[in-house]
Amino acid sequence: MTTSCSSEVAALAARAREAATVLAGAHRSAKDAALLRMADALTGRTREIETANAADVAAARAAGIPAAIVDRLSLDGARVAAMAAGLRQAAALPDPVGEVVRGSTLANGLELRQVRVPFGVVAIVYEARPNVTADAAGLCLKSGNAVLLRGSSSAARSNAAIVAVLRDAVAAAGLPPDAVQLVDASSRDSVRDLMTARGLVDVLIPRGGADLIRSVVEGSTVPVIETGVGNCHLYVDADADLPTALSILLNAKTSRPSVCNAVESLLVHERVAGDFLSTALPALRAAGVTVHGSPEVVLAGKTAGVDVVEATDEDHAAEYLSLDLSARTVSSLDEAVAHIRRFGTGHSETIVTSSQPAARAFTSAVDAAVVLVNASSRFVDGGEFGFGAEIGISTQKLHARGPMGLAELTSTKYVVTGEGQVR
Amino acid sequence: MTTSCSSEVAALAARAREAATVLAGAHRSAKDAALLRMADALTGRTREIETANAADVAAARAAGIPAAIVDRLSLDGARVAAMAAGLRQAAALPDPVGEVVRGSTLANGLELRQVRVPFGVVAIVYEARPNVTADAAGLCLKSGNAVLLRGSSSAARSNAAIVAVLRDAVAAAGLPPDAVQLVDASSRDSVRDLMTARGLVDVLIPRGGADLIRSVVEGSTVPVIETGVGNCHLYVDADADLPTALSILLNAKTSRPSVCNAVESLLVHERVAGDFLSTALPALRAAGVTVHGSPEVVLAGKTAGVDVVEATDEDHAAEYLSLDLSARTVSSLDEAVAHIRRFGTGHSETIVTSSQPAARAFTSAVDAAVVLVNASSRFVDGGEFGFGAEIGISTQKLHARGPMGLAELTSTKYVVTGEGQVR
Repeated sequence: MTTSCSSEVAALAARAREAATVLAGAHRSAKDAALLRMADALTGRTREIETANAADVAAARAAGIPAAIVDRLSLDGARVAAMAAGLRQAAALPDPVGEVVRGSTLANGLELRQVRVPFGVVAIVYEARPNVTADAAGLCLKSGNAVLLRGSSSAARSNAAIVAVLRDAVAAAGLPPDAVQLVDASSRDSVRDLMTARGLVDVLIPRGGADLIRSVVEGSTVPVIETGVGNCHLYVDADADLPTALSILLNAKTSRPSVCNAVESLLVHERVAGDFLSTALPALRAAGVTVHGSPEVVLAGKTAGVDVVEATDEDHAAEYLSLDLSARTVSSLDEAVAHIRRFGTGHSETIVTSSQPAARAFTSAVDAAVVLVNASSRFVDGGEFGFGAEIGISTQKLHARGPMGLAELTSTKYVVTGEGQVR
Repeated sequence: MTTSCSSEVAALAARAREAATVLAGAHRSAKDAALLRMADALTGRTREIETANAADVAAARAAGIPAAIVDRLSLDGARVAAMAAGLRQAAALPDPVGEVVRGSTLANGLELRQVRVPFGVVAIVYEARPNVTADAAGLCLKSGNAVLLRGSSSAARSNAAIVAVLRDAVAAAGLPPDAVQLVDASSRDSVRDLMTARGLVDVLIPRGGADLIRSVVEGSTVPVIETGVGNCHLYVDADADLPTALSILLNAKTSRPSVCNAVESLLVHERVAGDFLSTALPALRAAGVTVHGSPEVVLAGKTAGVDVVEATDEDHAAEYLSLDLSARTVSSLDEAVAHIRRFGTGHSETIVTSSQPAARAFTSAVDAAVVLVNASSRFVDGGEFGFGAEIGISTQKLHARGPMGLAELTSTKYVVTGEGQVR
């Protein structure tokens, strides 16, 4: 069931398949040795990477790209060292490949084992963060997959330098350098080609903004793992401890507003709305947050002497990724759940409550990758969850849901061993 | 990320979503009670189902539909009783929903649990086997999913009768009848509508022939689980016990040639080809099998006095689903693996060997849902694997691979419980 795609992507994918075949059979020791060499090479050749990156950064500045994006694009010695540290960390993690997930001996004596195996060829499409290049290469190699990396054109020189360094290290470690390949980022065609490389690419993972993810998910014939759009809610229940609710709200909204696990929307039970908003609205203002509220919240703002912008449905649906917050009151937990069902993106949803029945009702009724009780949604992260690494946060229900570590970069294979059994 | 689709499918899906919300919170006892009522209703209203089925069968005969397909379409008391037995069996299986797949307490005291949850709304597109209607409804209900059933137009009356019976039983058991809904099968549009019902349908499972599966997989924007195309190989190694190889070959080829786990292609190491083929070719002929062979196999046929048709690449790629078999010799295990890599569909691949290194090399190198050593591929089946039920055999790598039971009809949700932790 292979679909034709451009000869360039097809050629890269064919080389990746050859490399993947070798990687699938590589022992952990060989993969870890390659990861350590990759780490050493990044630190040893930092100058080379910085030079390439400086050219990307200069071009981005000249093109008027916003400062926040230029910052994410920029590399220095510390950032390259962090990439190397990530590779060393991947080397220290257990090998997911070969894990026996399930096993039994059947009544007829057949021995059944379900074993983790690599996907084969993984493609990742991402935006202007060159550190993703090393992170994704490391996690894919550790999990026995060859990777096709399609970064942003604005990071093309940086990514080319990083990939050249990584490929040399992989080759020096005796593994096929085509385990790590860069896809031409100069046109959108290469994304389209990856999306339609059915049979050549086993899994495609888009990482980046909502538009990128939507276009990949909707247009792809290759299996996709959808990641990371988060319109995350915090619901302050009638039985919430209000200081706890405020502490979690401020952390989840302001500690890093640009990430997908930041809270974008506040729901407050009407029974505690007056009390809670009278302290929360000034605290949010002090933290630089603009609140987009329902009429009740606007009124509470007036009482508290805080300007609240009137919220529209667009606000309730927004993943701001900024110091903005939509807010409304609800008359019940059920109304909060219904609001989340309507506007949520299935990422991370939080309840603050001291009521065990309310916590149980919320965690049961809310359909999301992660549901939190009395904790900040900022913890929704593969590293925080103890996975040691993260390739992204899946917001789909198929295959993987929530933070994805190494195991989520694998498939399984059943191995059945008999002594001549027939049916 | 909801895509528009026709109002009919959208309306069914919206009702399914409401039902799914109730089912997701239903206790096992309630679901099992509904399954037992569904079973009783099928046996109690067999006459009604037979009458509807007789009309479908008559129309199919009048339309000149092949006898084998008419046979699969036909229901009698015994077949309806078997459907009811399947529902009772589903009731007896453990509930996959709520299983804690993974759990830990993090260093900061957060309690992390990964819990199985239903997908929500599952759509199944299938061909003219009315028994699938009851089987799929039962497995979806047990796993907490609402199901949209899109069967064949030739089974429309049978399916309508079965679904009416099942819905009455679900309602009588106090669960929402919209947990089981039939999609209009009179036009291809309804398949297209299901394929594009993104956000309305959580998972789409095509069951049937290769053409149906390909068109669904390639055209769908809803997540798909690809099932069941099997060009399955049997490799007779240089170190094979030849009587065992012959026994497995005959069983895997002839016990039920029309199913996806039947062997379609024979690979024989050249060192044992003379010996093996001299007995295998006459035995295959005696069993009514037509062999499509490489020149060496044609020659062996001449020696054995058995006609062998010359094989083309189309033969090596074919999923015959009939008493046909492609065959060739190989000079090594590696050549067998390379042949399987080229022509296999990733379903089930078998080696017969007494050599442990050969078994290990084959199971490691072959990339398929199931790899068998010294056993018939006819065992590749959810029932045989001890899953108690099967919704299909996945040949994709994402989410599920190989026979799919109840657990494969679920997703997971992380539940994180804290006491006010912030990051």
